[in-house]
Amino acid sequence: MDGGDLLNQFMDALRVLPGVGQRTAQRMALHLLERDRDGGKRLANLMQEALENIGRCRSCRNLTDREICHLCSNTRRDAQRLCVVESPSDVLAIEHAGIFTGRYFVLLGRLSPLDGIGPDDLGLDDLERRLKEDDVKEMIIATNPTVEGEATAYYLRDIAEQQKVTVTRIAHGVPLGGELEHTDQSTLALAFSHRSQFSDD
Amino acid sequence: MDGGDLLNQFMDALRVLPGVGQRTAQRMALHLLERDRDGGKRLANLMQEALENIGRCRSCRNLTDREICHLCSNTRRDAQRLCVVESPSDVLAIEHAGIFTGRYFVLLGRLSPLDGIGPDDLGLDDLERRLKEDDVKEMIIATNPTVEGEATAYYLRDIAEQQKVTVTRIAHGVPLGGELEHTDQSTLALAFSHRSQFSDD
Repeated sequence: MDGGDLLNQFMDALRVLPGVGQRTAQRMALHLLERDRDGGKRLANLMQEALENIGRCRSCRNLTDREICHLCSNTRRDAQRLCVVESPSDVLAIEHAGIFTGRYFVLLGRLSPLDGIGPDDLGLDDLERRLKEDDVKEMIIATNPTVEGEATAYYLRDIAEQQKVTVTRIAHGVPLGGELEHTDQSTLALAFSHRSQFSDD
Repeated sequence: MDGGDLLNQFMDALRVLPGVGQRTAQRMALHLLERDRDGGKRLANLMQEALENIGRCRSCRNLTDREICHLCSNTRRDAQRLCVVESPSDVLAIEHAGIFTGRYFVLLGRLSPLDGIGPDDLGLDDLERRLKEDDVKEMIIATNPTVEGEATAYYLRDIAEQQKVTVTRIAHGVPLGGELEHTDQSTLALAFSHRSQFSDD
């Protein structure tokens, strides 16, 4: 197996995957070659197909191989509640929790003047149009609780308020199963300042 | 993104890779789609090509896309010293260490009567032929120090001795950088029973 042969090229190519170094790439390549050629061929085909055909949903900007994604075209989902997130992985996480039955808008980023990311890059024109056309009643902001995510949240709020749409945010605080002792001080400060009446529900 | 769409199929397919669960598969898929489509396409192509074209070297049974692998066809390597290993990853590890300049024979397994793996499955006929044809002077056994690896080593020794080939084994003992405190008792016992004269070299 010399530097330029097919096995080495294959092992090198595997390192484009996040978190995969030389040893892991080697283990993956040998595993597929020695134990699961069929699974590997299926993966190679689907990878090719996905990378060629998956683009953005014209309505919510999420990743999909259709013009309008499954979530936007699902008429059982409540179009009047729109959850705004930063990235496709946020949609997957919220869908996995199974708590939200409205629709999404995916910014594909956050406002970050230093990186040259402004309102145009986040499709905020599309968002405004969507707020009008879908007659949205509630826009739920679920950007990440980072400095840039916060700045984005305030910007989103202004847009929605101009359209007379109610704006809410998901709660931030100490996570379930988290221990106060191991919670960072900003989260703890937020959890105190956003404390609410202790009721039974 | 519904259960049957392309993105989900792609994420599922990634789980054939060893050590890749649902969350890692998701991270890998989104990384390729959002950040490195070109690297991903290159990987998909090479994966396809490798799984279709990589077979066994006719001489040493290692993985290669040629009839005779690079190591067996390299005339600078000493054909009279033959190192016998269990798997292609062992060859990679030894080559990485850069200490051995002879040739290899890859068993692709070890004797394991309980799993129905006998001498025929390990290509031992080919090994015998090779010992004769290449006029091998030294056969270095580098099977793994497991019960089955040991049994295989004894079997290999008998084959080589019938051919009047000198048989050696790589040393087993406490690894460099290992601490006695954390070395298992079998290794430690072996390291004591195989102790040698303390000399300067």
